[in-house]
Amino acid sequence: MGRTMIKYPNGNTFLAHKNPSATIKATPTISHSKRGMTLEEAINAANTFYLDRQIAVIHKKPTPINIVNVAYPKRAAAKINEAYFAQASTTDYNGIYRGFYIDFDAKETQNKTAIPLANFHEHQIKHLDAIIKQNGIGFVIIKFAVYNESFVLPATDVITFWQQSQNGGRKSIPYQYIKEHGFIISAGLIPELPYLKAVDALIAQQLN
Amino acid sequence: MGRTMIKYPNGNTFLAHKNPSATIKATPTISHSKRGMTLEEAINAANTFYLDRQIAVIHKKPTPINIVNVAYPKRAAAKINEAYFAQASTTDYNGIYRGFYIDFDAKETQNKTAIPLANFHEHQIKHLDAIIKQNGIGFVIIKFAVYNESFVLPATDVITFWQQSQNGGRKSIPYQYIKEHGFIISAGLIPELPYLKAVDALIAQQLN
Repeated sequence: MGRTMIKYPNGNTFLAHKNPSATIKATPTISHSKRGMTLEEAINAANTFYLDRQIAVIHKKPTPINIVNVAYPKRAAAKINEAYFAQASTTDYNGIYRGFYIDFDAKETQNKTAIPLANFHEHQIKHLDAIIKQNGIGFVIIKFAVYNESFVLPATDVITFWQQSQNGGRKSIPYQYIKEHGFIISAGLIPELPYLKAVDALIAQQLN
Repeated sequence: MGRTMIKYPNGNTFLAHKNPSATIKATPTISHSKRGMTLEEAINAANTFYLDRQIAVIHKKPTPINIVNVAYPKRAAAKINEAYFAQASTTDYNGIYRGFYIDFDAKETQNKTAIPLANFHEHQIKHLDAIIKQNGIGFVIIKFAVYNESFVLPATDVITFWQQSQNGGRKSIPYQYIKEHGFIISAGLIPELPYLKAVDALIAQQLN
């Protein structure tokens, strides 16, 4: 059966039947990982799980957009017919867990030995720095797709590497460093990516 | 000089010169209040003030949008040419202040005696309820435009009124009740709406 991959600008991908007479059905994409979910999908699924069980309230923020033109047709919903993607001023995820303010971004790399700092944007680093100064729990979830391993790396480490790179230092965070200083997210069944267990370890470290 | 009001779908308004040869300059709109800023503009200005001085990190979330079609012109930015406004699943504002997770929405009414509960949506009430259960600081900023008075009303009060209205109770929260149980935001110069002072009083009450 012919299938085509639809790539949405928000990074989501769906497989759809190519045959137009077939029902078009959004199904999880075949990602590069072995598990079948993109990192973003796995985090969203975990957040829904945590929300339903009153464990945490963490949401992904909507993609920021600059709207230029909107049409207001009669008897129909307002239609945005000209808009552009805008630069985010924060990270993608935040919320509350165990009374703590939680704030993070998620990055996936195909690289085997390090995650390039080009994956991070200055406004994200500045935002995480501001969160740390407010005693929030800031971190980055980094997935090494080739190993299908995801880590919670404290924002303080990311900020240090970023600052060193600005001063001529290396332009990436080594896999080995993340393995030693980050908290691995052990794969689960439901949810597949129970990242708050790794956040528990991060909180325990910060409280010491 | 001819000026025209541009109404953006996100609720922002700008005054622009009608004369196309004149520089188009975004200036604060003339609102219905005496102070010259809409409630949203005043909150955003306060958040910028708090962020710059490292007092708090609180941001308004982007408007959620469902993107249907995007064009990728050569040598130009991706253009969204079909999208629709989506229902938000949370409140508009959240962040961290004094180590506390802060979560709120802002509502303005022209009504003199009460704010109709029609201003609140079920998902906002559910979200605030979930935040309270996680020991977050949840509230609503309510502005009575005719008095130019704004209050921080604890989410617990809003939830109680909402639940009563679902069971046949009154469909609004009386001004008098808000005056007695909310925390008035004393007008300031910079920022105009120093709402975190009222949040301090709310936190003090919750810690008792």
